[in-house]
Amino acid sequence: MKKYQIGVMGSAADLEYPEEFEKAAEKIGEEIAKSGHITFYGAEKDYDSLSTAAARGAKKAGGLTVGVTYGKTKDVWDKEGNTDIIIPCGLERGGGREFVLVSSCDAIICIRGASGTLNEITVAYQLDKPIVVLKGFGGWSEKLADTYLDDRNRRKAIGANSPEESVKLILNELNK
Amino acid sequence: MKKYQIGVMGSAADLEYPEEFEKAAEKIGEEIAKSGHITFYGAEKDYDSLSTAAARGAKKAGGLTVGVTYGKTKDVWDKEGNTDIIIPCGLERGGGREFVLVSSCDAIICIRGASGTLNEITVAYQLDKPIVVLKGFGGWSEKLADTYLDDRNRRKAIGANSPEESVKLILNELNK
Amino acid sequence: MKKYQIGVMGSAADLEYPEEFEKAAEKIGEEIAKSGHITFYGAEKDYDSLSTAAARGAKKAGGLTVGVTYGKTKDVWDKEGNTDIIIPCGLERGGGREFVLVSSCDAIICIRGASGTLNEITVAYQLDKPIVVLKGFGGWSEKLADTYLDDRNRRKAIGANSPEESVKLILNELNK
Amino acid sequence: MKKYQIGVMGSAADLEYPEEFEKAAEKIGEEIAKSGHITFYGAEKDYDSLSTAAARGAKKAGGLTVGVTYGKTKDVWDKEGNTDIIIPCGLERGGGREFVLVSSCDAIICIRGASGTLNEITVAYQLDKPIVVLKGFGGWSEKLADTYLDDRNRRKAIGANSPEESVKLILNELNK
Repeated sequence: MKKYQIGVMGSAADLEYPEEFEKAAEKIGEEIAKSGHITFYGAEKDYDSLSTAAARGAKKAGGLTVGVTYGKTKDVWDKEGNTDIIIPCGLERGGGREFVLVSSCDAIICIRGASGTLNEITVAYQLDKPIVVLKGFGGWSEKLADTYLDDRNRRKAIGANSPEESVKLILNELNK
Repeated sequence: MKKYQIGVMGSAADLEYPEEFEKAAEKIGEEIAKSGHITFYGAEKDYDSLSTAAARGAKKAGGLTVGVTYGKTKDVWDKEGNTDIIIPCGLERGGGREFVLVSSCDAIICIRGASGTLNEITVAYQLDKPIVVLKGFGGWSEKLADTYLDDRNRRKAIGANSPEESVKLILNELNK
Repeated sequence: MKKYQIGVMGSAADLEYPEEFEKAAEKIGEEIAKSGHITFYGAEKDYDSLSTAAARGAKKAGGLTVGVTYGKTKDVWDKEGNTDIIIPCGLERGGGREFVLVSSCDAIICIRGASGTLNEITVAYQLDKPIVVLKGFGGWSEKLADTYLDDRNRRKAIGANSPEESVKLILNELNK
Repeated sequence: MKKYQIGVMGSAADLEYPEEFEKAAEKIGEEIAKSGHITFYGAEKDYDSLSTAAARGAKKAGGLTVGVTYGKTKDVWDKEGNTDIIIPCGLERGGGREFVLVSSCDAIICIRGASGTLNEITVAYQLDKPIVVLKGFGGWSEKLADTYLDDRNRRKAIGANSPEESVKLILNELNK
């Protein structure tokens, strides 16, 4: 079976979010792992994030996880050791690290999401990769659900109603 | 006088736009040049853009211009030689080149703008750089005018009513 | 057990090398895998390399393998599917991709090696990462064996007499 | 006249060098400026370098200067304001910044040089750009003078006997 590299993007914990959002992000990772695929996430050095939560979920389900981080070291916010591979890419956070991360993904799933997630969505769109966004969790994911990012009408950011559905939809797109 | 490096971002010509939009972009560059500052733009290899038009305007007014491009060569869409410095940064277009470009700017002015410009706005916001967006020309600039990109409420994308005003507003921000 | 990310660098196949060199490179990967660690390599799109051979060896021994490549796609020279994770980093080959690759490694082992490998050695040295170089296979590895790259005298490129010894030496350095 | 972007690379001041070496580096920049071309250099944040000295010389002679630095800010070691354009490229020092720098140069001149300069020479060689190295100042420049970096025999690192000659030789190569 071909293993896909699926990125899970979402709000960082300097912006607060309810625990149920974290559970939803973990569920996305869990579903990716159960499907036999690889979870990519943006590993931070200073705080947790919904992206990091996805790696937690993926690891609980026995999946392979890859964290892409900024700077020169592998020190990331991952106390429990949920990350199999850490890529300290040598590019700064705020667009550089995010570019390497999305370039490395076959497709991305987004939940909630502030400016960093929006950045990642614009990269995925420009590289013509499938994008699924969760509905019901606010953020840029909610705002962009079922729309094109511009008049090139490349791919819609496909809205999903649940973590489970988000993984189904992304696999549908990847298997087309 | 301290010379600022001001980026002008906007739609690429694979998406059509009226000639008056091009004139407005040129005007932004012209005003930057007249103020004694340096115009940065995203140099494409395959077509014109509002960003490139700004460099044209800056050069007509005798300003210094810097184009940041992708790939390994200095071949850019600039038939008239309006670019003083070309930076082929070695990162791909679609997020990588854009990151190096925005990292190199003290502030950015955006006109219209599709997914690429949106990407650049997210980088500027994350790097906490002043952002001015033109109103009346559509695109992401119009949509984001006078809003924050997320709940961190770092800096608003300040709406401007004309090319002239956009340069005044960005200099105000930079001189604060 | 802590899993190290160990890069294996070496000549590309546009420069010819004897089959026994390929076997030696495979052996390095095999030994990394047997020790329970992760093999990183520079994945090319146009031809084989000693770096790619190491991934082959690692995979034969059941190890985890990560290929870092240039450009936007995951199409790499790996017909047999020896690569678990492919990182298309979005930076060009010739220094950019190599930087992301070495940044992602805890240490590197080099065999033979032309200008690309020399580039990777300079990055590892500057990032203060352990470097082991094989003796007896020529190239920059041979030339630099047991020397410092400059007067900062950070770390010697430690000479190894065999693939097996190279992995022992690198683990010694990493476990210090 | 076509203006070339010529990089001057050399040892950083954490490694000591005599004042006459600094004067020689300034002379290279001066000659580039007098020839009407643009001087690129690697701008450091913590100390002076022969590369920075070249920018000093270029500016004294009225030339245009571009410094490429790491990280997110334009704060560089340039007390006298000799830099017209500063590119904080968002990539780390030790291979990333150097890659963007060399990618942006049409050719490079090297004087003395430790591991950083060696890195830059490997990038220039791989991108097939002319390389001139000063003889008589030690470092990697001296070691590599009049040799090919590998068996691809792309371009020799051409040895020069003086700063003046180094600029003549690089212009010869560029005008071929």
